[in-house]
Amino acid sequence: MTDNTRILLSEIPKGKLAEEHFSRDQVPVENPGPGEVLIRTLILSQDAANRAWMQGATYRSALSTGQVMSSYGIGEVLESNDDRYAPGDLVGGDLCWQEYATLPGTQISAAHHHDGPLSHGISLLGVAGLTAYHGLINVPTIHAGETLLVSAAGGSVGSLVGQIGKIKGAKVIGIAGGAAKCDWVVEQLGFDACIDYKDTTAPLRDLLAQQATDGIDVYFDNTGGDILQTALFAMNLHGRISCCGAVSMYDGKPRPGPFGIPGLLVTKRLHMQGFLVSDYSHLDGDARHDLSTWSKQGQLQVVEDIIDGLENAPRGLIGLLAGDNRGKRMIRVAA
Amino acid sequence: MTDNTRILLSEIPKGKLAEEHFSRDQVPVENPGPGEVLIRTLILSQDAANRAWMQGATYRSALSTGQVMSSYGIGEVLESNDDRYAPGDLVGGDLCWQEYATLPGTQISAAHHHDGPLSHGISLLGVAGLTAYHGLINVPTIHAGETLLVSAAGGSVGSLVGQIGKIKGAKVIGIAGGAAKCDWVVEQLGFDACIDYKDTTAPLRDLLAQQATDGIDVYFDNTGGDILQTALFAMNLHGRISCCGAVSMYDGKPRPGPFGIPGLLVTKRLHMQGFLVSDYSHLDGDARHDLSTWSKQGQLQVVEDIIDGLENAPRGLIGLLAGDNRGKRMIRVAA
Repeated sequence: MTDNTRILLSEIPKGKLAEEHFSRDQVPVENPGPGEVLIRTLILSQDAANRAWMQGATYRSALSTGQVMSSYGIGEVLESNDDRYAPGDLVGGDLCWQEYATLPGTQISAAHHHDGPLSHGISLLGVAGLTAYHGLINVPTIHAGETLLVSAAGGSVGSLVGQIGKIKGAKVIGIAGGAAKCDWVVEQLGFDACIDYKDTTAPLRDLLAQQATDGIDVYFDNTGGDILQTALFAMNLHGRISCCGAVSMYDGKPRPGPFGIPGLLVTKRLHMQGFLVSDYSHLDGDARHDLSTWSKQGQLQVVEDIIDGLENAPRGLIGLLAGDNRGKRMIRVAA
Repeated sequence: MTDNTRILLSEIPKGKLAEEHFSRDQVPVENPGPGEVLIRTLILSQDAANRAWMQGATYRSALSTGQVMSSYGIGEVLESNDDRYAPGDLVGGDLCWQEYATLPGTQISAAHHHDGPLSHGISLLGVAGLTAYHGLINVPTIHAGETLLVSAAGGSVGSLVGQIGKIKGAKVIGIAGGAAKCDWVVEQLGFDACIDYKDTTAPLRDLLAQQATDGIDVYFDNTGGDILQTALFAMNLHGRISCCGAVSMYDGKPRPGPFGIPGLLVTKRLHMQGFLVSDYSHLDGDARHDLSTWSKQGQLQVVEDIIDGLENAPRGLIGLLAGDNRGKRMIRVAA
């Protein structure tokens, strides 16, 4: 019987997430019961939302201590007691931070793929790609000639949002942390400009004003907090804000929202909308078609940041929350 | 030559607005030049927005010291050098806090009236009525069976919003200051419930939860601040927030927005939209038709809080900002 190495959430962090909040164990691989499927984990997604799950109920129930850390992943079916799946199939689901997952067939689905790498099932065609697509195209929409601002521009979602904005004819300004990352966002991803929020030579508000000479029509907000505050001041009348996440709020204590809420919302007649990618699942077919096509045509670069080894999952997630990833961070558990 | 008594904004308040920020003078009535109209002020509107104008540019330019305090009003034309207006006509415009206004004919328009009192041109058929109508019907819409929450429920706009919600078949919960005002909102205006935000026996969040047993579908926000914070926690998934104003923010220092922005906007997929009544001016005809009809049929009570005497304008506005009005506050300058 093979052993299953697992990483557990041993403590709910009160402040910043650290490696000490996790522990590792080994247990025998669980044989699949009736209707269940045994899956060998190949690759795991890492998402800022993983941290939000520790804070309490979000769009899913909160995590509790002592459970294997949750995470979407793609794996290969080894044994199946569900007629829909056979050994060798590639499936996706909440495989968690472990080498083997035994799950009811009802909780998994076929992994999405095209003629690209397996990891595209998590990045381009997975939640990251769908979030970027729906959160820009179906929430605020973007029109040619408009100015789009994207925070966490070097991240899994932001890197795609900005490129989709360019494909649609918008002027695209990113916000990211560090001069090197900002240079990369402009040179490699093709954004028109990228502002370093860690730049202390001038207030962020001034740095943004220098680039957003026509104001901001659409702000794709991955961060909340001070960056949202800054964006509010730069928004044009009737501007639209797509609220995708609040990564600045997840790791540590909740902080108050911007000063301009609701004052600037009224005077500028802004539109703020929170969304979850699942709200647009009826349009996933369109999204995957376009994303795959753009990628194959070379218009859309899929930036992946893959770390090898399950044991590196805690470090990878902690780094992600600090913004040290470029593109979609994943953990490769097995080749 | 008659004298014109005027009240000037003599100092921009740094904290709370007080009578000392105003001064009074008397000047000769100004004869109308080419294209101008001389108007005798009959009645002036008092609005929380008057205070916001002192803070800086909003949807109009900021007020400066030494100028006659701005205010919409209705008056009677005494002399006209504009072919569109004749002596005796009732007109509306920025008449300011003064007995006589001399304005270009291009800056006034015919006062709106129906077979009700003149003051309805400011309350029911004026900005208050249009704001309530557009801000509920055309911004978030309200559906029968939904739960509507309205802050400043005893105010000029809130008192109408809640009644329109009832006309449309919603369950309507108000928030107002003081037990007596809350009782009046329920008994006289027909709201299903009204919560006293000054009640210290329980947190506002608990008081709201007791009444909003099915959650809140639409929140009409007149206040911002802590009440918006409380509403966010009670909102249902996909709830809509119509941002009409932020009266809690106008009188004093700006304060940060709620903790749940943008976190709760994302997880609950909320929709927040700021609006100005002028955004929907193409639908003003519909609004005035419906408002007038509902009023004549006795479905909609127009609550007016009219203070006699121009000299009482400062006191009236200060009291309005403290929430001591019931319905639409106005200053009657002449009969």
